[in-house]
Amino acid sequence: MSQPSIQVIAIGNAIVDVMAPCADALIDQLGLVRGGMTLVDTDRAKELYDAMGPAREISGGSAANTLAGLAALGSRCAFIGQVADDQLGEVFAHDIRAGGISFATASRAGDPPTARCLIFVTPDGQRTMNTFLGASQFLPSAALDEAAIARAEVLYLEGYLWDPEEPRAAMRRAISAARDAGRKVAFTLSDAFVIDRHGDDFRALIEAGEIDILFANHVELAALTGHEDFHLGIDALKAKVPMLVVTRGEHGAVAATGGALYEVPAVPVERVVDTTGAGDLFAAGFLHAHVNGHAPEACLKLGAICAAEIISHYGARPEANLRDLAGPLA
Amino acid sequence: MSQPSIQVIAIGNAIVDVMAPCADALIDQLGLVRGGMTLVDTDRAKELYDAMGPAREISGGSAANTLAGLAALGSRCAFIGQVADDQLGEVFAHDIRAGGISFATASRAGDPPTARCLIFVTPDGQRTMNTFLGASQFLPSAALDEAAIARAEVLYLEGYLWDPEEPRAAMRRAISAARDAGRKVAFTLSDAFVIDRHGDDFRALIEAGEIDILFANHVELAALTGHEDFHLGIDALKAKVPMLVVTRGEHGAVAATGGALYEVPAVPVERVVDTTGAGDLFAAGFLHAHVNGHAPEACLKLGAICAAEIISHYGARPEANLRDLAGPLA
Repeated sequence: MSQPSIQVIAIGNAIVDVMAPCADALIDQLGLVRGGMTLVDTDRAKELYDAMGPAREISGGSAANTLAGLAALGSRCAFIGQVADDQLGEVFAHDIRAGGISFATASRAGDPPTARCLIFVTPDGQRTMNTFLGASQFLPSAALDEAAIARAEVLYLEGYLWDPEEPRAAMRRAISAARDAGRKVAFTLSDAFVIDRHGDDFRALIEAGEIDILFANHVELAALTGHEDFHLGIDALKAKVPMLVVTRGEHGAVAATGGALYEVPAVPVERVVDTTGAGDLFAAGFLHAHVNGHAPEACLKLGAICAAEIISHYGARPEANLRDLAGPLA
Repeated sequence: MSQPSIQVIAIGNAIVDVMAPCADALIDQLGLVRGGMTLVDTDRAKELYDAMGPAREISGGSAANTLAGLAALGSRCAFIGQVADDQLGEVFAHDIRAGGISFATASRAGDPPTARCLIFVTPDGQRTMNTFLGASQFLPSAALDEAAIARAEVLYLEGYLWDPEEPRAAMRRAISAARDAGRKVAFTLSDAFVIDRHGDDFRALIEAGEIDILFANHVELAALTGHEDFHLGIDALKAKVPMLVVTRGEHGAVAATGGALYEVPAVPVERVVDTTGAGDLFAAGFLHAHVNGHAPEACLKLGAICAAEIISHYGARPEANLRDLAGPLA
């Protein structure tokens, strides 16, 4: 068999982030869930935007951020996600293609507009996200390029996109297409609140052996397994997914695979400016090393390097040359 | 007379900057005017955007940037400029209002869309700007709040907006309104190429004594006066404008007023990341100190402080707390 042209194909929300620094007090005043991701409707989005300081717009979306990292590292990637036929949709499409990622999903005419995420960044660098899903929630199964999914080494899916019905159905179909072709399915749990809503689905997928690589942070691990204790959580899952990868913020990350546990410390950063995309870029580094045949320690290490880069600046798309940072792991 | 509610009212292009780092070679490949501002049409804007790397969007516009700095320093400001009724127009309007600046110009329905400036930033931090003027060029005289102009201490105008016919007429009318009310008119020359096109108009305004405060950089000074020698340029203008302020990049800035010449060195920065907005923020610092009654040296010093802040990061809107940086000059 010839080498697949695409290494990682992802399905995710197509979002433009609208980001601004904010004082700690504003988080409480606005009733925001500090550090979390909350879905908001048009009215709430307007209310929050009105309360936000001068902002900047940078393309985002969890899986799209991961692909941006992967592509910057040299992986061949494709993205499937729904934008509207509007200016923010053009921004998203430009940025992902300019990063060298294939993106062929046709934009959607009419309302609602392209998804945006209003991100308030507190002085400690923590991000509090409020997502207006807009067009993103209408990604239809028809947008899937099943032949491309069958050819790609890894199908990468974000838990965030499990909320809306149409993309959920599309992702289920994509999982079947990938598995039928003998490909790996990677899944990120995204957020503890998403697990509150869809944990049963996620657990069923895992029990059925549909997930080859599972990404979570320690909070999501607890939410999924019901174990507050980190190691009990790992123990509950490690036999059910071939590769379990759990990030622990400043405490580094672990991978459980083949009956063994691997661990790396976090890469120190001078100042945590904005944690948006930390998990996304960790996944990028891990997956890049993984698809290039590196051992679990090396995958974790590259994940930590990419996460450190992304939290050193505003926005969830890499700014530094990740290949230079990766060195021999690139 | 009671204190005017607005200290500085500005008329300028209402632009969202689309910025990306780029290699030096791309500037030549695309045939761009390195370090300059070039007006582009829809087709050329598309061509340049297609060639641009992953970008970020940050509100811009020369006079709007200056007001953002002024407002961040604590000045009371109002902006007049034309956006379209679209997403980038919302972004511009949000950002300027979120900065505490009054902005009442109604957005314009239909085509063309809100202005954007495609900015390529080379590794040395130099910015090369390509402006699609869009809705901005249709600012009508009817959008002027002449009563507000008559009440504001200073009317601030950008030379960039002299290109399109409607805003030019609006600015001429605004100058009359300000002068009739005994207010000061401040003008920035913006760009040497603008002077190539409109130098005769600018010289006529200066000769007629319509400009109280003139901002230029050393290249624009040479273009306007025909003197390559900096001091000959200053000598040619200093008797014609009550306050002449000329920036010289890393060589600092001078002010010529009341028969004397004042000079400050540039404030050193660790790394020049992006020079976009350096002149705009210099003007902000200078004007803030000026309207608060500080001496020319202090005005120059605050200008240099604000310029140093803006070139230390991407984008032409301040990120650091300018009041903290200004200290007793705020």
